[in-house]
Amino acid sequence: MLARVRASFDRQAMMSTLGVEVTSVAPGQVEMSLRHDDRFTQQHGFLHAGAVASVLDSACGYAAFSVMPPDAAVLTASYTINLLAPAAGERFTITGEVVRAGRTLVVCRGEAFADGDARPFAVMQATLTAVFGRPGISG
Amino acid sequence: MLARVRASFDRQAMMSTLGVEVTSVAPGQVEMSLRHDDRFTQQHGFLHAGAVASVLDSACGYAAFSVMPPDAAVLTASYTINLLAPAAGERFTITGEVVRAGRTLVVCRGEAFADGDARPFAVMQATLTAVFGRPGISG
Amino acid sequence: MLARVRASFDRQAMMSTLGVEVTSVAPGQVEMSLRHDDRFTQQHGFLHAGAVASVLDSACGYAAFSVMPPDAAVLTASYTINLLAPAAGERFTITGEVVRAGRTLVVCRGEAFADGDARPFAVMQATLTAVFGRPGISG
Amino acid sequence: MLARVRASFDRQAMMSTLGVEVTSVAPGQVEMSLRHDDRFTQQHGFLHAGAVASVLDSACGYAAFSVMPPDAAVLTASYTINLLAPAAGERFTITGEVVRAGRTLVVCRGEAFADGDARPFAVMQATLTAVFGRPGISG
Repeated sequence: MLARVRASFDRQAMMSTLGVEVTSVAPGQVEMSLRHDDRFTQQHGFLHAGAVASVLDSACGYAAFSVMPPDAAVLTASYTINLLAPAAGERFTITGEVVRAGRTLVVCRGEAFADGDARPFAVMQATLTAVFGRPGISG
Repeated sequence: MLARVRASFDRQAMMSTLGVEVTSVAPGQVEMSLRHDDRFTQQHGFLHAGAVASVLDSACGYAAFSVMPPDAAVLTASYTINLLAPAAGERFTITGEVVRAGRTLVVCRGEAFADGDARPFAVMQATLTAVFGRPGISG
Repeated sequence: MLARVRASFDRQAMMSTLGVEVTSVAPGQVEMSLRHDDRFTQQHGFLHAGAVASVLDSACGYAAFSVMPPDAAVLTASYTINLLAPAAGERFTITGEVVRAGRTLVVCRGEAFADGDARPFAVMQATLTAVFGRPGISG
Repeated sequence: MLARVRASFDRQAMMSTLGVEVTSVAPGQVEMSLRHDDRFTQQHGFLHAGAVASVLDSACGYAAFSVMPPDAAVLTASYTINLLAPAAGERFTITGEVVRAGRTLVVCRGEAFADGDARPFAVMQATLTAVFGRPGISG
């Protein structure tokens, strides 16, 4: 399972472009980290919500993927993100965990933390879908 | 108003990094465009949902900003994105429009289209907030 | 299709308890109406968001159901509702329409209007799922 | 604080109509309970998502209200609900808790449990807004 997550993650160019690292993978739980980067800021100089959302989405996606059957591919169907404070900091920790896995839909929750803050500055509720046997879609 | 939107957009490094262009701004309505870029793909080779969401978020944000008082800054409070199909294509058109503007909250809808497809491949419902007099937060 | 929608709607006790009427059904588009009722108010005397959301959910659900295969049952996977103003009025019109229908997921948008107001006081983005061959789940 | 929550809850006719009880209130945390009622079912005989959402919305709303200043009224700005399984059961426990409280916006998470099941069958991410000095809006 770990190998499948790593292999799929390594194919996400978006993650390497953002400089994201996978710091922990367990069944239904994934943690990633991200550094502030001036290339990905919004108009006030904070990290753009879209960069944070991308990593939250991936963390939730791989948390879901980690509990899917080995022949499933994972796609994001939808997510809601709440931005509770600006993404102000140097290093961000992003977590994704499975709330409940159904037949084809898996619901996950994600949280984003800045530096040593114990309160999340962003939270996500995501719906991932397992896809089987669709040409060109694996992992 | 147009000048304020442009000035703020030009300060979003994330937008220039993604190669986003503002193609149209009117009160309550913004359109942007984005090209496929291999640096921002997910594991199946399509544009990452996070890249699409970043631009939808900005299009909704500036649609909201365009109807706010001149001294307001705009922040995204939350959004929900539904991904209806993979972001497959060469050129993407992303729209944001105001549904209704309240005292401090503005609700917008965004849609993302690939090449000449008239059906959106992603839709967003976003809540933007007007911020006044907060140090370091303008535009 | 119309008969299937009506038959399923008539089995939703929640809808008759709330006094909801289906005023129009077309492929991918449903309209319902609802009257103010003091039994379903929140603490300020307006209709409770939950009552409005119930009808928006049903309108979106039947819009989705109307474009599903005849042997599908419809379930709501998730929705996001934005409440733009209190539900103040006597008579509410609630619409649901399909944005895009995929293999098993259908995304809909709903809007709620009070009396003659042309601006919605609530909007919904909903994800419905088609269910096949699950015992006890039809319509 | 407890008295303010109870007083406001008692004015929500929707809650008494649904038969909801407040079982616990602490700063930032509220728990309610609800029984199955044939008047509030959907087409498959389960409790309608709208009934569950109404109680989740109220639980989140009062969790937020419990950490707001005494002169604030609470309104729901938006919420996202994921329905992970049908609301099958006799007695439902619904919780709401504050994730983070900002100046005017408070983000909460809600969970709904059926009978003795430790896994939620529905989860909510809600955005509540504090309202001050608006005529007719208190509590």
